[in-house]
Amino acid sequence: MAVGSEVSKLDRRLRLGMVGGGPGAFIGAVHRVAARLDDRYELVAAALSSDSEKSISAARELHIPRAYKDFSEMAAAEAERPDRIDAVAIVTPNHMHYPVAKAFLAAGIHVICDKPLTTTIEHALELSEIVERTGLIFGLTHTYVGYPMVRQAREMVLGGELGPIRMIQVEYAQDWLTTNVEASGMKQADWRTDPARSGPGGCLGDIGTHAFHLACFTTGLTCLSVASDVSTFVPGRRVDDNVQVMMRFSGGAKANLWASQIAPGNENNLRLRIYGEKAGLSWAQEDPNHLTFTTLGQQPRLISRGGSGTGGAANWATRIPSGHPEGYFEAFAQIYTDIAEQITARIEGRAPNPYSLLVPGVDDGVYGVRFINAVLDSSRRGSAWTPLHAAKL
Amino acid sequence: MAVGSEVSKLDRRLRLGMVGGGPGAFIGAVHRVAARLDDRYELVAAALSSDSEKSISAARELHIPRAYKDFSEMAAAEAERPDRIDAVAIVTPNHMHYPVAKAFLAAGIHVICDKPLTTTIEHALELSEIVERTGLIFGLTHTYVGYPMVRQAREMVLGGELGPIRMIQVEYAQDWLTTNVEASGMKQADWRTDPARSGPGGCLGDIGTHAFHLACFTTGLTCLSVASDVSTFVPGRRVDDNVQVMMRFSGGAKANLWASQIAPGNENNLRLRIYGEKAGLSWAQEDPNHLTFTTLGQQPRLISRGGSGTGGAANWATRIPSGHPEGYFEAFAQIYTDIAEQITARIEGRAPNPYSLLVPGVDDGVYGVRFINAVLDSSRRGSAWTPLHAAKL
Amino acid sequence: MAVGSEVSKLDRRLRLGMVGGGPGAFIGAVHRVAARLDDRYELVAAALSSDSEKSISAARELHIPRAYKDFSEMAAAEAERPDRIDAVAIVTPNHMHYPVAKAFLAAGIHVICDKPLTTTIEHALELSEIVERTGLIFGLTHTYVGYPMVRQAREMVLGGELGPIRMIQVEYAQDWLTTNVEASGMKQADWRTDPARSGPGGCLGDIGTHAFHLACFTTGLTCLSVASDVSTFVPGRRVDDNVQVMMRFSGGAKANLWASQIAPGNENNLRLRIYGEKAGLSWAQEDPNHLTFTTLGQQPRLISRGGSGTGGAANWATRIPSGHPEGYFEAFAQIYTDIAEQITARIEGRAPNPYSLLVPGVDDGVYGVRFINAVLDSSRRGSAWTPLHAAKL
Amino acid sequence: MAVGSEVSKLDRRLRLGMVGGGPGAFIGAVHRVAARLDDRYELVAAALSSDSEKSISAARELHIPRAYKDFSEMAAAEAERPDRIDAVAIVTPNHMHYPVAKAFLAAGIHVICDKPLTTTIEHALELSEIVERTGLIFGLTHTYVGYPMVRQAREMVLGGELGPIRMIQVEYAQDWLTTNVEASGMKQADWRTDPARSGPGGCLGDIGTHAFHLACFTTGLTCLSVASDVSTFVPGRRVDDNVQVMMRFSGGAKANLWASQIAPGNENNLRLRIYGEKAGLSWAQEDPNHLTFTTLGQQPRLISRGGSGTGGAANWATRIPSGHPEGYFEAFAQIYTDIAEQITARIEGRAPNPYSLLVPGVDDGVYGVRFINAVLDSSRRGSAWTPLHAAKL
Repeated sequence: MAVGSEVSKLDRRLRLGMVGGGPGAFIGAVHRVAARLDDRYELVAAALSSDSEKSISAARELHIPRAYKDFSEMAAAEAERPDRIDAVAIVTPNHMHYPVAKAFLAAGIHVICDKPLTTTIEHALELSEIVERTGLIFGLTHTYVGYPMVRQAREMVLGGELGPIRMIQVEYAQDWLTTNVEASGMKQADWRTDPARSGPGGCLGDIGTHAFHLACFTTGLTCLSVASDVSTFVPGRRVDDNVQVMMRFSGGAKANLWASQIAPGNENNLRLRIYGEKAGLSWAQEDPNHLTFTTLGQQPRLISRGGSGTGGAANWATRIPSGHPEGYFEAFAQIYTDIAEQITARIEGRAPNPYSLLVPGVDDGVYGVRFINAVLDSSRRGSAWTPLHAAKL
Repeated sequence: MAVGSEVSKLDRRLRLGMVGGGPGAFIGAVHRVAARLDDRYELVAAALSSDSEKSISAARELHIPRAYKDFSEMAAAEAERPDRIDAVAIVTPNHMHYPVAKAFLAAGIHVICDKPLTTTIEHALELSEIVERTGLIFGLTHTYVGYPMVRQAREMVLGGELGPIRMIQVEYAQDWLTTNVEASGMKQADWRTDPARSGPGGCLGDIGTHAFHLACFTTGLTCLSVASDVSTFVPGRRVDDNVQVMMRFSGGAKANLWASQIAPGNENNLRLRIYGEKAGLSWAQEDPNHLTFTTLGQQPRLISRGGSGTGGAANWATRIPSGHPEGYFEAFAQIYTDIAEQITARIEGRAPNPYSLLVPGVDDGVYGVRFINAVLDSSRRGSAWTPLHAAKL
Repeated sequence: MAVGSEVSKLDRRLRLGMVGGGPGAFIGAVHRVAARLDDRYELVAAALSSDSEKSISAARELHIPRAYKDFSEMAAAEAERPDRIDAVAIVTPNHMHYPVAKAFLAAGIHVICDKPLTTTIEHALELSEIVERTGLIFGLTHTYVGYPMVRQAREMVLGGELGPIRMIQVEYAQDWLTTNVEASGMKQADWRTDPARSGPGGCLGDIGTHAFHLACFTTGLTCLSVASDVSTFVPGRRVDDNVQVMMRFSGGAKANLWASQIAPGNENNLRLRIYGEKAGLSWAQEDPNHLTFTTLGQQPRLISRGGSGTGGAANWATRIPSGHPEGYFEAFAQIYTDIAEQITARIEGRAPNPYSLLVPGVDDGVYGVRFINAVLDSSRRGSAWTPLHAAKL
Repeated sequence: MAVGSEVSKLDRRLRLGMVGGGPGAFIGAVHRVAARLDDRYELVAAALSSDSEKSISAARELHIPRAYKDFSEMAAAEAERPDRIDAVAIVTPNHMHYPVAKAFLAAGIHVICDKPLTTTIEHALELSEIVERTGLIFGLTHTYVGYPMVRQAREMVLGGELGPIRMIQVEYAQDWLTTNVEASGMKQADWRTDPARSGPGGCLGDIGTHAFHLACFTTGLTCLSVASDVSTFVPGRRVDDNVQVMMRFSGGAKANLWASQIAPGNENNLRLRIYGEKAGLSWAQEDPNHLTFTTLGQQPRLISRGGSGTGGAANWATRIPSGHPEGYFEAFAQIYTDIAEQITARIEGRAPNPYSLLVPGVDDGVYGVRFINAVLDSSRRGSAWTPLHAAKL
């Protein structure tokens, strides 16, 4: 989807609502840029804060026409409007994903939800059941699979270019929680280290689930079981901040996953390496426009977004030529644009572009919650191998 | 200007018009994304094509409310409206910059213009004179100085962290014109290799001026004279495709500039290195979020956009934390956002944020045209040292 | 130990013997270069092959004056000579390390032995006991700790620059055993995949022990227990070829170790990352002259071998200025030179340079064998946490 | 020439003498390591210092059996011995290359000489004439063409894989002369900045000639003329420290050469890029084991020393597998080993391995002196294009 083909056949932009993500919340502003970038949405309704006054004033400041006090009021009111929102973006702390998603699904509105899906598997399964029953579109913002080169990796793996997969190395390291910053009132750290709002996983839920989804997405394999060692290194912290996981996948593949927020020198270091019988590949989020691919016995090749030899999946998510870096916003925008394509196709009564279906859905969210639970279980039981389906329900 | 502080005090978005850049023109779509990204503009008027019918239909497709047949009609009509556009973006081939800019300046409308400013120095000087006389805002889209790390480099150089500058290495290499693609009808190549539309410089005007501006912007120095060797390697090509320039700057600094569009393996390889008496630095457009800085006798340090030790100029142009790559669109958006800040401040009767003034203006455009002429002159005269001011006018 | 200070005070070179490593054996030639590079040894005696005729002829071809049929003859004969060898280098397949080392230690000759030390813990402990009893010098060629930047890492960690260590990531990936090359008679693969000659560990013994030693060496920590998943991916292979290990260290540090010889695109990819409470560092064998060091909240610094801010341990192992790459041979030579320093000091009746004591010894070898056994045990027992000391003896 | 085939058929090592390079002189020790590394030489005679007493004592310390007071005595004495040296290595400041080389050539001894060849073109031509007349072997230690990947580059260019060459970028940047270190008595800087000992070129002769030779060696092209700007940035310095050169080559290729010793952050940054009609390549001395090669319209490939797809020229200079870095010493050793091969072949009455002839000879030295003179001439004449043959004689 080059920038040049920026035009939707729909004679209007989709109407988007947002819950959470008021001024000051980093990720809310990112969602808004992402929704705006490809010009497929117009943000027309919002309940941006859990404080009803702030919720109204924040929407006004952002020139959002329909400002609501809270998500319940918003879901109810929008459901009644002829020009109601096509989709709602849920950008709250984790514990609110479930009630908000449920309310809007009940109102017949498509959902774009931040990850992890919920803080309990029961809630996750309930949302999945609702989505299946209603047929509504549910997108989960695992941002990193919006990167074209991640999609290229998937296409190459599924196309057999690596042969059967043997080993996956995925890691996601940061350093911003190396000290007890939550004690000093840093807002981002505060809710993420509060189990009541983040759910049982800290680092595990926040970034471990991204790494897990990335490994599953790019290989198309199913994780069967995990053996893990979950740590909390920072004194006083209430959730994990370093997670080591060994994994076994369908087809005999194995994997290591490491997620850490206490690794000084790592900014947002998400890296993926996949090794098959015939070839291997490597990708890093901090250099997202490149993919290194090596067929056994041949010279490593550098695949460049927008460059030579990229496939349809990557090209669908590419806006500008190689050498002009696309970044985090564009990956995020791709998630939004893919969901827009799905919604637009629904409205127009046609099949969506198949590449738009690569965006993660509610069942990926269920899978992520299972992963969180299994990893915590395994670690509690001396790193015993723990099947994903058995993990606490 | 973090994403979190995305709110302008103005109670509306600025109204933007666009001339040129219809569907199919790569750079038009880029301008639209750039204008939209920080939510400071609404694109409300356009004359997108030199073909009047296409001009109308293209605007319709893009949901632009006020569609005009051509730029003259648009300038005249907008001038009359109470809700007229605040600024026009000129996204045409080079030879049209001058008449379009002149028309909108005459209508009292601020201008955002692609580079190089004009195809002749006379036109450039005339535009400069009009801008000075009218006091209108004129922004030139030298995209690359929208990158935060480029601004960081400038701040460090001007702050004396490198000491007096001795040597500058700047290069801009691409490979997309390695063969005679213009002969096969590639639209981007076609007008860029046609002197009637691109002006006298080919590679020199298209990317050499970017490299030149980058060197001047980051050092704050004035280029006094050039000795150059300008080549056309591809048979049948009507403009240059490889340019070597030695430069002498105010204060005794020297520089090499190399611009090439026939260097296989280079996608959009703009690189800058600056060496002073005390320290050196290095930046590359294809890895734009990092800057390497080395004080003589100390260990090289990696400065990261959004990371430790960045200054006010870089932070003003930063939206998200380090490790989350920003790219070409965000650099381009910064140019638009800086101009929005200037326009908004004008409307609000206050001084603009000083960092917004880093965006290049009409006099940078004049300087760029002087550079083109001096380089061509020098090369014609056996690489003789040629002062910039003496270059053809 | 700069090249400039290449002179030993001893009025002769040390006399070196070699067992194993005949022409065709890659590592034998490497040992000879390493011994020669710093001019501290003269290779005067050898039993280069298990075939007695080849043993004699190979020594002749290499201009080695004293050629022996086998190691027993050599140990006996050298023991009797007034000008007997100062040290013997053992460069055989793993299963021969024990008998050869025992024979030369019995002859009162210092030993330089390839890793892993032995194929059983009983043999390892016996060698350790002999070394302790005789006081002879025993060096183990964990080549990679000969690299100056590895020693720099150790010095920084032990000097407290990282604070207490929390997490270690070490990996050693290769791809040369991705297919069943041993079946096609490749000599290097043949003995390494034969448990009778390599010992119980395949990839684990060959490269896993290097990674393990590197983690211990650089942090000074003791590995308490391991939980592992050991795989043989290539059908028909008799030893492991991919090893995943989670480790717990003294002081609460944790670690991941991954060793693989079936990872296409990895040549000799040994990488180490260490994270403490205050800082983190990263080193990679394929770019051995650099170390990246990041103090939390500061900019990453690139430490260069021979460059600014390196410490005594690194400088001792540095021959030429920064920017002039030293490589694998020089690291290997450092192991030899450190042992030469120890032997020379012994002869001269003085204390050796303390940095020369960084070379691994017999107890590091015992530790490595314990590691092999513990990892295999853990994997057999469903990845149960297995203490190192309890591992099979 | 893999390490495994380390055996010469000659039944002895070659006898090497050395003039200059006493303890304390960096490059002398490097030459000795280089000569020793592949075991083709035995250093048996030396006049290591211009001070006759030091000359004797230094040789004793290094265990060199035949110690001479000065080069004249050495040349005369060696000429008379039946076991006289096969070759002499000249490791003095530049102004002594001529008389020493002349003396040993007169004695019928092969010469290995540091670069630049001489300080005047007259001396250079005289040496060339003597070499031609005597048929003696004369090797010039342009170290960097000893790197396997440099030879790979040459083989690919000459094999037509890049098509006709259009543009060459070569640069050699260092920072060790950024301040006036010669004033503080630093020995390395002292003679290199003294025109009486270094010759007319400072940076130009010391490293510019390396860059020049590298460009010529890898492309096989002849430099026709230069336009240059030669600078001395450090106050009080008596020679140049920054050199910019535009070059024109046979066949229409053009080039930029930049050599600088005042560029903070550059350790020994020699880089080469070559662009032809069909492909481009890039190599950097600080990462010498890799070469990036891009065929137009294809993905860049990373060629690794010892890895897949390397040719005969690179393999001849390769000792160990890919992933095990070879460095500066090994490149230097290759120069020595190539000359050893030439000398050995002469002794054995056979043709040398053709790859050994890649080592630079006396005529490359003449060419380098012409380059120095032409660059200085051009700069003095306002950067006028100056043919190489016309440069001062």
